[in-house]
Amino acid sequence: MTSLTAQDGADIESQLIGKSVVTLDDLTTDQISLLLRKGNYIEHNMAKVRHACDGRILATLFYEPSTRTRLSFETAMLRLGGHVIGFSNAQNSSVSKGETISDTVRVVSNFADIIAMRHPKEGAALVAAHAADVPVINGGDGGHMHPTQTLADLFTIQARFGRITNLVVGLCGDLMFGRTVHSLIETLCRFGNVHFVLISPDELKTPRYVIDRIEASGTCSYEEVHDLQDAIGKLDVLYMTRVQKERFFNEDDYLRLRDTYILDPAKMKLAKPTMAVLHPLPRVNEISFDVDSDPRAAYFEQVRRGMLMRMALESSLLGDRLPGFDETEEVAA
Amino acid sequence: MTSLTAQDGADIESQLIGKSVVTLDDLTTDQISLLLRKGNYIEHNMAKVRHACDGRILATLFYEPSTRTRLSFETAMLRLGGHVIGFSNAQNSSVSKGETISDTVRVVSNFADIIAMRHPKEGAALVAAHAADVPVINGGDGGHMHPTQTLADLFTIQARFGRITNLVVGLCGDLMFGRTVHSLIETLCRFGNVHFVLISPDELKTPRYVIDRIEASGTCSYEEVHDLQDAIGKLDVLYMTRVQKERFFNEDDYLRLRDTYILDPAKMKLAKPTMAVLHPLPRVNEISFDVDSDPRAAYFEQVRRGMLMRMALESSLLGDRLPGFDETEEVAA
Amino acid sequence: MTSLTAQDGADIESQLIGKSVVTLDDLTTDQISLLLRKGNYIEHNMAKVRHACDGRILATLFYEPSTRTRLSFETAMLRLGGHVIGFSNAQNSSVSKGETISDTVRVVSNFADIIAMRHPKEGAALVAAHAADVPVINGGDGGHMHPTQTLADLFTIQARFGRITNLVVGLCGDLMFGRTVHSLIETLCRFGNVHFVLISPDELKTPRYVIDRIEASGTCSYEEVHDLQDAIGKLDVLYMTRVQKERFFNEDDYLRLRDTYILDPAKMKLAKPTMAVLHPLPRVNEISFDVDSDPRAAYFEQVRRGMLMRMALESSLLGDRLPGFDETEEVAA
Repeated sequence: MTSLTAQDGADIESQLIGKSVVTLDDLTTDQISLLLRKGNYIEHNMAKVRHACDGRILATLFYEPSTRTRLSFETAMLRLGGHVIGFSNAQNSSVSKGETISDTVRVVSNFADIIAMRHPKEGAALVAAHAADVPVINGGDGGHMHPTQTLADLFTIQARFGRITNLVVGLCGDLMFGRTVHSLIETLCRFGNVHFVLISPDELKTPRYVIDRIEASGTCSYEEVHDLQDAIGKLDVLYMTRVQKERFFNEDDYLRLRDTYILDPAKMKLAKPTMAVLHPLPRVNEISFDVDSDPRAAYFEQVRRGMLMRMALESSLLGDRLPGFDETEEVAA
Repeated sequence: MTSLTAQDGADIESQLIGKSVVTLDDLTTDQISLLLRKGNYIEHNMAKVRHACDGRILATLFYEPSTRTRLSFETAMLRLGGHVIGFSNAQNSSVSKGETISDTVRVVSNFADIIAMRHPKEGAALVAAHAADVPVINGGDGGHMHPTQTLADLFTIQARFGRITNLVVGLCGDLMFGRTVHSLIETLCRFGNVHFVLISPDELKTPRYVIDRIEASGTCSYEEVHDLQDAIGKLDVLYMTRVQKERFFNEDDYLRLRDTYILDPAKMKLAKPTMAVLHPLPRVNEISFDVDSDPRAAYFEQVRRGMLMRMALESSLLGDRLPGFDETEEVAA
Repeated sequence: MTSLTAQDGADIESQLIGKSVVTLDDLTTDQISLLLRKGNYIEHNMAKVRHACDGRILATLFYEPSTRTRLSFETAMLRLGGHVIGFSNAQNSSVSKGETISDTVRVVSNFADIIAMRHPKEGAALVAAHAADVPVINGGDGGHMHPTQTLADLFTIQARFGRITNLVVGLCGDLMFGRTVHSLIETLCRFGNVHFVLISPDELKTPRYVIDRIEASGTCSYEEVHDLQDAIGKLDVLYMTRVQKERFFNEDDYLRLRDTYILDPAKMKLAKPTMAVLHPLPRVNEISFDVDSDPRAAYFEQVRRGMLMRMALESSLLGDRLPGFDETEEVAA
């Protein structure tokens, strides 16, 4: 924990104004810490911030449907007093008919003060960020980055443990294709002092470039294991992901492995009483419904924290101050 | 008409807070009466109530399109000062992809303060109501219930006659499959003292369980007739429904019967000068356009009253008081 | 320029209240001038007008998608403090199922204070305007009129030159099928004193009825030419449109002509330093992206001015005064 001078705090805040966030690398660790503190402030001061973005307009440009993410961005703006325009599916939109993303975004810049965009193609958010006259937040582009999901994950960990460092973080299931997992690992590595327990079948192991990032961090470590049941006892955080049948070469392997990666009350009995279970949702069957009532289940809380982080991010990029928030308080990093 | 003590009125009101409304059986007759009085109050005090739900968010989760119903729910919340998020068609939404209704509703509970849901499957609204942390209003589930349509019908009758009892209520057309008809009959039976004139071809007669409900009421009576022209003269209320060609075994029967169930100016001449014509809309050809300008045509007014009742219901379930409304005034029942 | 008495100004303004705008012929030139002055006032007084339409609801009934137009209408209402309901595609809506446009619009009149409608069929907006109890603005009906696009065009010309008369206006590309071009010419003819340079291939010449309108104006003149490069030097305004391949009888003609009608930096070098380039968007390749950074490129500014004119129009038809606006100031015509 470090304490900031008023000038430092003001600088970190002012440098967020007008920025686009395509990946979390667009934010410094100080800025991420500031957003986490803002999320925490907003959670406890919803009434105070409800006019922070009065008169602002968010455009949600969702070229593919992602209802959960779209409603989270929209709720965040509405809870800050702003308004929302947009579309939820390019197939019902005329924007894609022969018009470049750049042109669409330049048009929408004349309507909205900030844009949240989701697009099936990697790189679309970056193109949009370059073209727009207003901040663009990436709400997911292809197999690529989805920075506000990671902010939701970090805030949930922070809320449960009071910190995002000095933790044993287990990640379980499909660690090869799950972009949320990669982004969370990479971001935790920037803050340091995390031991990762990577729990997956051989077919779905963490890619080498992510392992490299852990090793390059200097302060983080990892182990790769196959079995959730064996590993669960040591974890502070368990981040579950879905194991999709399509990822396996044959059905026998899938059936053999599937249950290993399903979290149920029996496995929860082996876990610490303070462990937090996260999941980016939607869940299919990888977490048993019986686990939902366990106080360690944090995945619905995580949805709420994602919305709070989007409130923190939207207001910060717009340069709208949160009444009563003191940016010079200590930073959690 | 009965007069309530302040405590009674406050109790009826407070017991609505946080409730879900899947069918009208979820509401007591006192609560329905309170909602009718609120609808009436809102109609005459739109300016006073326009900030009653400031800062609230309604989620409209429409798994099948129903533009009329959705816009009514949304307008109701906006006219109370709240905001709206949601989707209008599950096919443009990602919510249904392998996620249970329970999970979707639990996610949305983190965004919205109240949910209005429409779903093609019977029972979906009940599942949602159990899972949600916020009130759920059923906006129609399959062939099942659609309670706010019935509230619209009741309020229209109340507004035209000052009462919903001691009336002769004709229901005309498809009385077998029309869920709005069944719900209206069942609810009027709870208040009592209505004589129903059930006007339909034999192929589309009122189901036995609905007749049973009339008989069980003790104070209501009914007659079944084939001919609108013969019956119209005795009616206070005429509730029209559509006779769909597909319901008939052969086209000859359909063609023979169709005109019998079309309301036109000639038939209107036989009706009382105070009769009220209701219809749940959309109408196809079962009410001639020439009838629209007749002051007895109440079906567009009914749309407005549906919106007013949704304002009454949404604010009540949220526990948001209507400024100036006195819940101790006499109840119309 | 003429100066109005307070009474004249108030009359022009009051006669707009409750009107529907299906074509620009629904507005007098005084009313168009008033709207241009209001657009200019709004541009410089966004903070003052942001509560002008508090509590109002706009319904956007878009029977075919037109994201750009819909978001412009919606943003306009939100920036005035109002709310928005509606649908963006009739295929996701239930409104069209067997219900007449008249019935739908009468239903929606019970929800909204004003309607913006787009429909694939010519005449749909006129039908809606007759049926509605609230003002209807045509957001495009078939190959027909799109009056708010023309208001955007006029306001952009007005903003660049301080007038919409005494100008040389070039229109380039498809002058046969482009409805925006015809509407702009017809409206400029009502104000008079414009010389039109009609730049198109023979296959896509301006229709005779539009030429007739120029000739009937008395004060306007025109010339028809084939080559943009030859004509560009004399233009104050260059209105670009797309030349669609499908319009040509054979591909050779298309390929031969296409480049003639593409605006690029080389052609811009031949133009006046004050020329304004307009385009209704979306553009495909008829304006090179290199032109975007030229200060004479006015097509993204035109998007913003379209939104401002929709603010002027929506508030005027609703009868909501713009705080601080003086309707007696001189009229630009």
